[in-house]
Amino acid sequence: MAEVKLFGMWASPFVRRIQVALELKGVEYEYVEEDLANKSEVLLKYNPLHKKVPVLVHKGKPIAESLVILEYIDETWKNNPILPQDPYQRANARFWAKFVDEKCGADLWQLAWTKGEERENAMEEACQNLKILENELKNKKFFGGEGIGLVDLTGTFIAYWWVDVIQEAAGIELVTKEKFPVLWNWIHEFVSCPTVKKNLPNKEKMVEFLRDRFSSGSWKY
Amino acid sequence: MAEVKLFGMWASPFVRRIQVALELKGVEYEYVEEDLANKSEVLLKYNPLHKKVPVLVHKGKPIAESLVILEYIDETWKNNPILPQDPYQRANARFWAKFVDEKCGADLWQLAWTKGEERENAMEEACQNLKILENELKNKKFFGGEGIGLVDLTGTFIAYWWVDVIQEAAGIELVTKEKFPVLWNWIHEFVSCPTVKKNLPNKEKMVEFLRDRFSSGSWKY
Repeated sequence: MAEVKLFGMWASPFVRRIQVALELKGVEYEYVEEDLANKSEVLLKYNPLHKKVPVLVHKGKPIAESLVILEYIDETWKNNPILPQDPYQRANARFWAKFVDEKCGADLWQLAWTKGEERENAMEEACQNLKILENELKNKKFFGGEGIGLVDLTGTFIAYWWVDVIQEAAGIELVTKEKFPVLWNWIHEFVSCPTVKKNLPNKEKMVEFLRDRFSSGSWKY
Repeated sequence: MAEVKLFGMWASPFVRRIQVALELKGVEYEYVEEDLANKSEVLLKYNPLHKKVPVLVHKGKPIAESLVILEYIDETWKNNPILPQDPYQRANARFWAKFVDEKCGADLWQLAWTKGEERENAMEEACQNLKILENELKNKKFFGGEGIGLVDLTGTFIAYWWVDVIQEAAGIELVTKEKFPVLWNWIHEFVSCPTVKKNLPNKEKMVEFLRDRFSSGSWKY
């Protein structure tokens, strides 16, 4: 068995953020694709509580929950740090990662499933969140400063899934260069990084995967 | 200005977990009680995004979000560690803290506001979560092993607010010694610790504070 194994699903941004982190660290790993409609016994054994991907298995020991995995990776392989060293800066990174994950990402995902008036309200909420990120990013290349850090990795969903895929698949125009110039610049910088780029799914495949689901209003594998 | 300041509200379990952690570390601090119906300018300046307590201010720099604050405290004052040193054990502690906070605590809080059939379903869900904790705690004094750790601190809500206060204030019997003997033992050990005990609010005051709110079904300060 490989020393590092990652159980994932190709279309999941939560899995891809782990792949980018492992790539940043130069960690070799075996990737195991899961069929989420028919989860493997091994996945259920490794993540009995949430039964979800990603699960990282290191030396036979499983870790679940993507932000927990990112911290584990950073503490285990010290090169190319994902979190800053200073405790206050670390707290800041964790604060923003939580906001990006639990608020911005969750609200955007909800927005993609809305219609009509409900969509207008959801747009307003999502827009407020993004303005906060726009302000936070001012004068910085990445949330992590000069290099990719925890908040950038957490934001993979916004940078790629939302802007490149979901806006097209769900027919929504929210993030544009005109409305969010700072975020737009970050997105460009982030998805252009070779480390990130090679770990993102194919755009056409992703749009196709999501378009039917959004138009039917049903999330099925 | 004190080197360490904590902005809190007496009835908040999120604030109390920070107070227990500071006590464990022997950190002296100035406590500032906030009126949540009329938040201070200072609180809004320090936590403009969520406008919530707790906020810890160390050397003039604010940190919000209680789990982020706990990690900051542990990284800043190294004595009496809250998290283990080993990366895998740290990942485990973070995993369970997240589950206790976002799933168990949130479901229990929802349960307190339900009535009739809705309550039965919520009881079932909350019961499943607690069984998982019961199993995780087996053969351990605390989630953190022999001493109080991140998961125990996160579980303050269950150990005190739920069992000692909310069950009485909302008229619910869910956690008993018979149904959850392992959790019950943990609760007893945890709330009996002098460090914890001296940082919990008065029971009668808490019951009174919550009883009217639960019976009216409305959360107002």
